[in-house]
Amino acid sequence: MLRSTLFYGAVVALGIGIGFKVYLLRPSPLPPMDFDRWWGDGPQPEDEDASIRPFVIVFNESMVEDLKSRLRNRRPFTPPLYGAQSQYGMNTKYLDELLTYWSDKYNFTERAERLNKFSHYKTTIQGLDIHYIHVKPEGKGKKVLPLLMLHGWPSSSKEFDKVIPMLTTPKDGYEFIFEVIAADLPGFGFSQGTRKPGLSPLQVGTIMSNLMRRLGHNMYYIQAGDWGSQVATHMTTFIPHEILGFHTNMPVSSRPISNVKYIIGSLFPNLIMDEKYINRIYPIRKLFDYVLRESGYFHLQATKPDTIGVALSDSPAGLAAYTLEKIGVCSNRHQLNTPHGGIENIDRDDLLDTVTIVWANECIVTSMRIYAEAFAHADVFMMHNIPTVVPTAAINFKHEVVYQPDWILRDKFLNLVRSTTHDFGGHFAAMQTPKALADDVFESVKEIISFRLNY
Amino acid sequence: MLRSTLFYGAVVALGIGIGFKVYLLRPSPLPPMDFDRWWGDGPQPEDEDASIRPFVIVFNESMVEDLKSRLRNRRPFTPPLYGAQSQYGMNTKYLDELLTYWSDKYNFTERAERLNKFSHYKTTIQGLDIHYIHVKPEGKGKKVLPLLMLHGWPSSSKEFDKVIPMLTTPKDGYEFIFEVIAADLPGFGFSQGTRKPGLSPLQVGTIMSNLMRRLGHNMYYIQAGDWGSQVATHMTTFIPHEILGFHTNMPVSSRPISNVKYIIGSLFPNLIMDEKYINRIYPIRKLFDYVLRESGYFHLQATKPDTIGVALSDSPAGLAAYTLEKIGVCSNRHQLNTPHGGIENIDRDDLLDTVTIVWANECIVTSMRIYAEAFAHADVFMMHNIPTVVPTAAINFKHEVVYQPDWILRDKFLNLVRSTTHDFGGHFAAMQTPKALADDVFESVKEIISFRLNY
Repeated sequence: MLRSTLFYGAVVALGIGIGFKVYLLRPSPLPPMDFDRWWGDGPQPEDEDASIRPFVIVFNESMVEDLKSRLRNRRPFTPPLYGAQSQYGMNTKYLDELLTYWSDKYNFTERAERLNKFSHYKTTIQGLDIHYIHVKPEGKGKKVLPLLMLHGWPSSSKEFDKVIPMLTTPKDGYEFIFEVIAADLPGFGFSQGTRKPGLSPLQVGTIMSNLMRRLGHNMYYIQAGDWGSQVATHMTTFIPHEILGFHTNMPVSSRPISNVKYIIGSLFPNLIMDEKYINRIYPIRKLFDYVLRESGYFHLQATKPDTIGVALSDSPAGLAAYTLEKIGVCSNRHQLNTPHGGIENIDRDDLLDTVTIVWANECIVTSMRIYAEAFAHADVFMMHNIPTVVPTAAINFKHEVVYQPDWILRDKFLNLVRSTTHDFGGHFAAMQTPKALADDVFESVKEIISFRLNY
Repeated sequence: MLRSTLFYGAVVALGIGIGFKVYLLRPSPLPPMDFDRWWGDGPQPEDEDASIRPFVIVFNESMVEDLKSRLRNRRPFTPPLYGAQSQYGMNTKYLDELLTYWSDKYNFTERAERLNKFSHYKTTIQGLDIHYIHVKPEGKGKKVLPLLMLHGWPSSSKEFDKVIPMLTTPKDGYEFIFEVIAADLPGFGFSQGTRKPGLSPLQVGTIMSNLMRRLGHNMYYIQAGDWGSQVATHMTTFIPHEILGFHTNMPVSSRPISNVKYIIGSLFPNLIMDEKYINRIYPIRKLFDYVLRESGYFHLQATKPDTIGVALSDSPAGLAAYTLEKIGVCSNRHQLNTPHGGIENIDRDDLLDTVTIVWANECIVTSMRIYAEAFAHADVFMMHNIPTVVPTAAINFKHEVVYQPDWILRDKFLNLVRSTTHDFGGHFAAMQTPKALADDVFESVKEIISFRLNY
């Protein structure tokens, strides 16, 4: 009896082991990629327009006047419940004050001028007009490295306006500086959205690769967060030869094995990660509560972006409340007991730049659709389940939405060259803690170069 | 070895059995209920105003003009993706046409007059002004039975305007007719919302009980759907002596044992339910996909009602898109491949009555907060886990959001006297299929009376 029990036990264990190996560790094959897929209206023309056109940000008078009149004509909001600050979502008393600032004090002209200190361009890639900031500094004895910067939702290249000067200026101790190309994802900021279904973060990757090639860069670095980091993670997987190194402030492995490890890790967290960061993800129940509490917008955008988009396209107050509440929580998740709910961790004008850009470009719907496209296509999941050899540096700010210990990140990033974890900061690092982000990019690229040289 | 294996096996089975009995079948104790809890501003006054005040619905000119001007001044919406109808949410081409009808053709005066054919009242219960329609027919030889009707989100008592005349008119074959009290839940329709946290569906139950007592009814029937059905289900549990019978078009047992049975049932659906209704819930994976696809609004409202409320308070177009998309899907979940997404299953003026009432009363936020309160308080979960003896009749329309076979419903409703399942209709039965609903109420109450007599 004992022997047969042991025998069957061994068979079962072997079965589980093989299943683990086959289904969880086996990477997907590379799905076919079409770098010429046409996202513009109509069929692809014979002769593509490959021109690069200088662009200037203008918040034109009629848009601004209409916006102000909508803000001033806003309906009275339902007051928060007694004793509630931001626990039921946006505190409308706080919001009122913020909206009055937007309509009466925020200086549209000055803010646009400030952004126009950078050189802006548009060029048409795969049928869509893509906007980007391009800062090409003189080396002054330093090597100039091309760096593509990719933002997330509800941002645009504007998110990088504090970081770009730091990255394009020589820094003591480093032999290089960066030529920055900060692009707006299609359907975000000043980049055109598509009317065709299917523009997932994976497909956005081909557009970004084509953009860099058009600018003469066949090999480059990437810095990215949020959806930008998802796009970039895909790029490190399907064009690893183009990406010299990847710096991400939202490092995520979405491989199935990583999810299993995440759950198993909850049983013995001390064995898999540095003790002081355990409370970022465990107990898993607390994480689950947090995710459930804060992911309603995600759920809605991944399923019905066009529905919620109507109200957000029509009401600037609603757009501000909806986007800024999320930016607040992601900047500090522990401030729901304050009227601002985390919003005040970021400069008010920076926040309103972001909302103004979305409003002026009427791009809230096209930007939200990326949530739906990200979960609708098999090739995205296949790409997630392929590891990459691109040297990668991860920076984990305290209030980042997702935190994975290196043990899990290495499922995806086989060459995780550097991993830094900070006790401050949040999801919108470029706006919230620009210096910490820029410093880490320099140090990470230094380590990546050294890793490549010494390999 | 075999004997010890059997022994340990038996111990484990016994343990599971006891756990099942103790944790899943054991009902919760009745949580304490406060029928005088004060939801109005400030402290409870010495002398309460118990007056019953006639009320007339008026869509006043300044509200209507402001609404029309906001509708006409709406911003151009992002067009749907090529080939998409309602798969990404509200089809904005369809919406545009609907909004033009609202601003230019919907007759605010006539629609208000139509509702005013019923007698409306307001009275203050526990500090909140509660609005209700009260139709007290002459018996003409029939017995007059009091019936409380409770709607859900985003509705109001208006939802019952087609059903009320049917219920208050003698019907061949029935010895009774109904005196209908159709109330607006607090924070819905013309009923005042609270500024105090905690007004869960359970607490709403005390308000409705007090309303009926004020109208002289210590024993009555209830008909309800959606949140109204949740409120009523709680009432059948904590005041079973007041509820003569309960008719629900969203019958749900939320007892933990029911969830377990729901999942176990997926393994052998033929054993637990009528074969022809299996596809309403199984395969469970399909149900899960549907729930995930359609519950984004629920997730958001249960966590951040105040955030999304800003946009919906400020934009009538946004309010219409957000509420009508849900009404459409819940009326027919298989029409996402049409521009209306199910909306056209319900009369357009009825839909716009609903949206106009929410807009005019600025109650979208207070109505959405019920989703948050429903999941925030232990007494709600305790009350869910107590069965009730109140004779109950369930009607299951085809596209109702939740479908539970009787085997599961009986966990909560020990006296499930009648259960009807239709191959048509949906969640908003009173608007979509008023005759089928009214007919079933008559027949159900007849069976409930007979059940009581013959017991």
